[in-house]
Amino acid sequence: NRRIIIIGGVAGGASCATRLRRHNETIDIILLERGPYVSFANCGLPYYIGGTIQDKNSLFLANVDLFKERFRIDARILAEVTKIDPATKTLTVLNHQDGTSYTESYDELVLAPGARPIRPDLPGIELAGIFSLRTVPDSQQIKDWIQNHRAKRAVVIGGGFIGLEMVENLIQLGIHTSLVERNLQVLPTLDQEMTIPLRTILQQHGVALYLGDGVTAFTQGKHGLNVHTESGKILVADLVILAIGVTPENKLAQDASLNLGLQGHILVDKNLRTSDPYIYAIGDCIEVRNVISGKKTALPLAGPANRQGRIVADMLVGRGRFFRGVQGTAICGLFGVTIASTGLNEKTLKQHNDMEYGVVYAHPNDHVSYYPGAKPIFIKLLFDKNDGRVLGAQAVGEAGIARRIDVIAMAIQMKATVFDLEEAELCYAPQYGAAKDAINVIGMIAANEMRGDLSITHWNEMGKTGSVVLDVREAHEVATRALPNAIHIPLNSLRQRQHELPKHQEIQVSCAVGARAYNAVRLLSNLGFRASLLSGGEKTWFNLDN
Amino acid sequence: NRRIIIIGGVAGGASCATRLRRHNETIDIILLERGPYVSFANCGLPYYIGGTIQDKNSLFLANVDLFKERFRIDARILAEVTKIDPATKTLTVLNHQDGTSYTESYDELVLAPGARPIRPDLPGIELAGIFSLRTVPDSQQIKDWIQNHRAKRAVVIGGGFIGLEMVENLIQLGIHTSLVERNLQVLPTLDQEMTIPLRTILQQHGVALYLGDGVTAFTQGKHGLNVHTESGKILVADLVILAIGVTPENKLAQDASLNLGLQGHILVDKNLRTSDPYIYAIGDCIEVRNVISGKKTALPLAGPANRQGRIVADMLVGRGRFFRGVQGTAICGLFGVTIASTGLNEKTLKQHNDMEYGVVYAHPNDHVSYYPGAKPIFIKLLFDKNDGRVLGAQAVGEAGIARRIDVIAMAIQMKATVFDLEEAELCYAPQYGAAKDAINVIGMIAANEMRGDLSITHWNEMGKTGSVVLDVREAHEVATRALPNAIHIPLNSLRQRQHELPKHQEIQVSCAVGARAYNAVRLLSNLGFRASLLSGGEKTWFNLDN
Ligand SMILES: Cc1cc2nc3c(=O)[nH]c(=O)nc-3n(C[C@H](O)[C@H](O)[C@H](O)COP(=O)(O)OP(=O)(O)OC[C@H]3O[C@@H](n4cnc5c(N)ncnc54)[C@H](O)[C@@H]3O)c2cc1C
Ligand SMILES: Cc1cc2nc3c(=O)[nH]c(=O)nc-3n(C[C@H](O)[C@H](O)[C@H](O)COP(=O)(O)OP(=O)(O)OC[C@H]3O[C@@H](n4cnc5c(N)ncnc54)[C@H](O)[C@@H]3O)c2cc1C
Ligand SMILES: CC(C)(COP(=O)(O)OP(=O)(O)OC[C@H]1O[C@@H](n2cnc3c(N)ncnc32)[C@H](O)[C@@H]1OP(=O)(O)O)[C@@H](O)C(=O)NCCC(=O)NCCS
Ligand SMILES: CC(C)(COP(=O)(O)OP(=O)(O)OC[C@H]1O[C@@H](n2cnc3c(N)ncnc32)[C@H](O)[C@@H]1OP(=O)(O)O)[C@@H](O)C(=O)NCCC(=O)NCCS
Repeated sequence: NRRIIIIGGVAGGASCATRLRRHNETIDIILLERGPYVSFANCGLPYYIGGTIQDKNSLFLANVDLFKERFRIDARILAEVTKIDPATKTLTVLNHQDGTSYTESYDELVLAPGARPIRPDLPGIELAGIFSLRTVPDSQQIKDWIQNHRAKRAVVIGGGFIGLEMVENLIQLGIHTSLVERNLQVLPTLDQEMTIPLRTILQQHGVALYLGDGVTAFTQGKHGLNVHTESGKILVADLVILAIGVTPENKLAQDASLNLGLQGHILVDKNLRTSDPYIYAIGDCIEVRNVISGKKTALPLAGPANRQGRIVADMLVGRGRFFRGVQGTAICGLFGVTIASTGLNEKTLKQHNDMEYGVVYAHPNDHVSYYPGAKPIFIKLLFDKNDGRVLGAQAVGEAGIARRIDVIAMAIQMKATVFDLEEAELCYAPQYGAAKDAINVIGMIAANEMRGDLSITHWNEMGKTGSVVLDVREAHEVATRALPNAIHIPLNSLRQRQHELPKHQEIQVSCAVGARAYNAVRLLSNLGFRASLLSGGEKTWFNLDN
Repeated sequence: NRRIIIIGGVAGGASCATRLRRHNETIDIILLERGPYVSFANCGLPYYIGGTIQDKNSLFLANVDLFKERFRIDARILAEVTKIDPATKTLTVLNHQDGTSYTESYDELVLAPGARPIRPDLPGIELAGIFSLRTVPDSQQIKDWIQNHRAKRAVVIGGGFIGLEMVENLIQLGIHTSLVERNLQVLPTLDQEMTIPLRTILQQHGVALYLGDGVTAFTQGKHGLNVHTESGKILVADLVILAIGVTPENKLAQDASLNLGLQGHILVDKNLRTSDPYIYAIGDCIEVRNVISGKKTALPLAGPANRQGRIVADMLVGRGRFFRGVQGTAICGLFGVTIASTGLNEKTLKQHNDMEYGVVYAHPNDHVSYYPGAKPIFIKLLFDKNDGRVLGAQAVGEAGIARRIDVIAMAIQMKATVFDLEEAELCYAPQYGAAKDAINVIGMIAANEMRGDLSITHWNEMGKTGSVVLDVREAHEVATRALPNAIHIPLNSLRQRQHELPKHQEIQVSCAVGARAYNAVRLLSNLGFRASLLSGGEKTWFNLDN
């Protein structure tokens, strides 16, 4: 029989194995997993630690018996591949149950070994109580440690998705938690201003936040672990969670002389084949192409791993499938606030000297404000200024975030423009949206800029020489939080009071969220002034400046 | 000055007027509204009656003063246009404040008069206590009637969106409510099986449901209004709500000899211009093109009206804009359940003899089942069997419905195929979705059928001559609700027990929701059987048959 071996039995590997069996009943399929479980829900681990997921068994979506009975797949746990020999098409397996090693031969091989948490080589990194989180045993160790040591203080290092999820879950356990992040923002994959609402909510939940600070060493103190930071702080903790990112599991590939990328990822072609024609690779371990920029990247997330697994199953039965690349859709929840993004962020776009992009902000409500419970969505849209193509979006808020980012994700996939967002026909009833949905609104603003009806001033140019700032909010709003050095004329008085404004200077207009300022910009333009919009109004400025 | 008059001051008319002013400061813009309010939220009226929206003022998104101060628009309420004379470009306005009439002349005219509720010519229709709902005064009358008559029993006639919203709100007020609908289903714009969950929830909330029955007459009884039905029932009620649909406000257009469609809608070209070059029409009163079928239709919803208003504003300042047509996205909430749809339904597709379409059902969860609170989404996807293009989708459930239908709405707008849904990169974290999101799953199933890996049997062919039905659920599941005349072999025993199945008959496979049955179909096909999937499993069958 033809013999296909898959290394790694979770997201990518398991999806590949099951679909391969569905394609063909006679191939021998062997799934090798070094850990004690196949098909577990890595993504649920923070919530298992925090207790939201109570039953550990619910983390297991399949097991060795199910693979055998349902799929006739020979899934082996505690079976670590230690060496691949592409020349003889064999590999060495270390059986962790008895310490013995054996050889297996394959016709084709699929690498789905995932990635491992980065453990920086810092003094004291080996001390007890410093954890990473990747596997079910990792999570059990953390849970047990918390219980056995009655942990009351934790330090989480790294403010990415997993770091934030761990912060939420530790706080949920009543543990005082500090978060140390070297960047000046949490979620470094997003643009900084979009993450400010997260900073606020972290502080509201009592998280001690150390941004722009890195950890230099760990020492064992009398009362716990001491976490030393670059700025000279010493944080005392009963446990430390390392969440500063992952690095691809590439040792097997490297030893087998497969081509690797600059960051150590396994290189694959469009069909997910490595430099060895009999070896495919999928999931966190590979380098992928960003569909928008065309640049090489990595996106260690479960969706791509699952879909790549299916594609390789198809390839293995002779179908010409290819992976379309990634666009970077991601989401994270934090104490009831959701933040999500898709496509390129502005930081990345700034590095593309060739691309002239537009940026608009808005704060539309999740549903119409006349129906109770409406929540604002802080949304940022990036688009190509030449043709209006949507390049990326980021959104944060308490409701409707996944929905709006998913719609824009589909728009980006289909190469939609801002004019398509403007004309999108989406669900509307009062409790669900608006006749002009958030998606339409952000599309309309961008379309207005594309058509030349709206000039937008970037916030970092607010008040630049030769310009004046005009705030068109009502007096009571200005009283709460004023823009620096702004002339104040409420929108409804603008016609009468236009003579108060300079005819030959640029007038940069703001209001609370941008809608009234837009009306002011149009009015002033029609009256012969030079006016531009400070997009997203004072609510955006507050996030930028703070 | 150039003079543009807009008839109708709500969704379409108001949106057109404001954008027109933003384009040009010198045009005289006159907005004529026969009712007492401009810019009100019709869509909120059922919730105002039910008390969820408490403050009537929140229903007004703008008023005459705001139009004047902010937009320099001459908005007039209680100003009804009674006649248009295209030859002289004048119109006659009846001022309801003093009963006088006057003439206005225009350079261009925009018709946005909306639609009016159908009041069938039935005996007794003029009796007090029989209401329609379109305007704020309508809602106030209903509210007052309920209060003044201490109404305890209501009959709602018509199970469309507005009828259902009224049912929910009347029940919320503690009023015993009956719903009479001539069709055999509520929400006749959806396919019947998708509406079964609504029937269930209506019954759970004590609504007396009369499907397949029509009202023939109303009489005044001693204890209330008697509502007589075709089947001979007499329902006694303190109030009746008529919600059997709307008809376009076309009298002015008809009298002015503008071209009308077969259903009486005003005919417009791609630029929303009527048969008179100086008159545009937008909103509920016009006929539009369905972008998928290319057929003429009407979609009396607020989103299209708003977007059409903007387009006509652009046209009026000499920009060549066109309306892309409609795809029929709609949503409705009912006692915590949401139902939504976009694109064509199967009923409509059946009428297109030329189109070979595919249908798949699934019941994926809103988010992964290992995270608490996951809710199933009952989803149906329709696609073109020739190229896989997505034609329509319907979904019902307690969570994530608007999100999934909006994503598919964007997919349809961009002419996406089921292969695009299969590969969509959407938001996933445990509380928000799945590595294979509901959208991916429904796309995968359809893609599997497109690629010939999966043959699907329509439910109405279940058990047809020459076939057997195989149920691969576990025994305890079958015990709860069995499929008629099905062989029962649990999926995991199928390999061993394959000899129990006929080699030369079609084996139609079902499970609970379709996922296990799909695995069985693949296995049986690989073993040389002829197998097909009863898509969506027993959970779908239950909705079809009941
Ligand atoms: C705490 C946490 C939360 C996450 N949350 C999310 C989320 O919310 N959303 C999201 O999209 N993604 C999330 N992810 C990421 C997601 O889990 C991964 O992207 C996905 O699991 C990658 O799939 P994979 O198949 O490439 O690797 P994995 O799922 O990691 O599977 C690889 C397997 O290979 C095994 N293996 C490695 N080397 C060998 C060897 N030599 N021999 C045998 N077996 C080997 C490993 O033990 C491992 O079990 C999260 C990850 C973690 C750790
Ligand atoms: C109870 C209810 C609930 C709804 N719920 C939803 C929903 O959840 N989602 C959704 O998308 N849509 C909903 N709709 C439909 C939505 O309100 C309409 O599609 C939308 O308002 C149509 O806009 P329009 O401008 O064409 O007409 P309208 O908004 O009706 O405005 C037309 C105006 O023109 C005026 N008029 C008519 N004739 C004349 C004349 N001769 N002279 C002067 N004025 C005149 C009328 O008085 C009216 O105010 C709902 C409608 C109702 C009644
Ligand atoms: C459990 C596991 C082995 C199951 O894989 P699977 O058999 O491919 O099945 P899934 O449950 O993912 O469902 C998807 C498959 O069922 C099919 N399917 C799902 N619902 C269906 C329905 N109602 N009707 C027909 N087919 C259906 C899909 O088309 C797909 O099959 P395909 O890949 O051949 O097209 C694998 O998903 C796994 O290991 N997951 C856990 C690991 C993981 O992803 N971790 C990281 C995230 S936390
Ligand atoms: C109230 C009403 C007159 C306001 O219309 P409007 O001035 O066009 O403004 P909206 O509040 O709809 O916002 C949309 C406009 O503001 C712009 N805008 C919104 N937020 C913005 C922001 N943050 N920055 C810049 N521009 C913004 C949009 O681009 C759009 O302008 P455009 O059409 O010129 O592109 C009109 O919407 C109305 O009458 N609505 C109620 C009636 C109705 O729709 N009923 C049925 C549904 S219940």
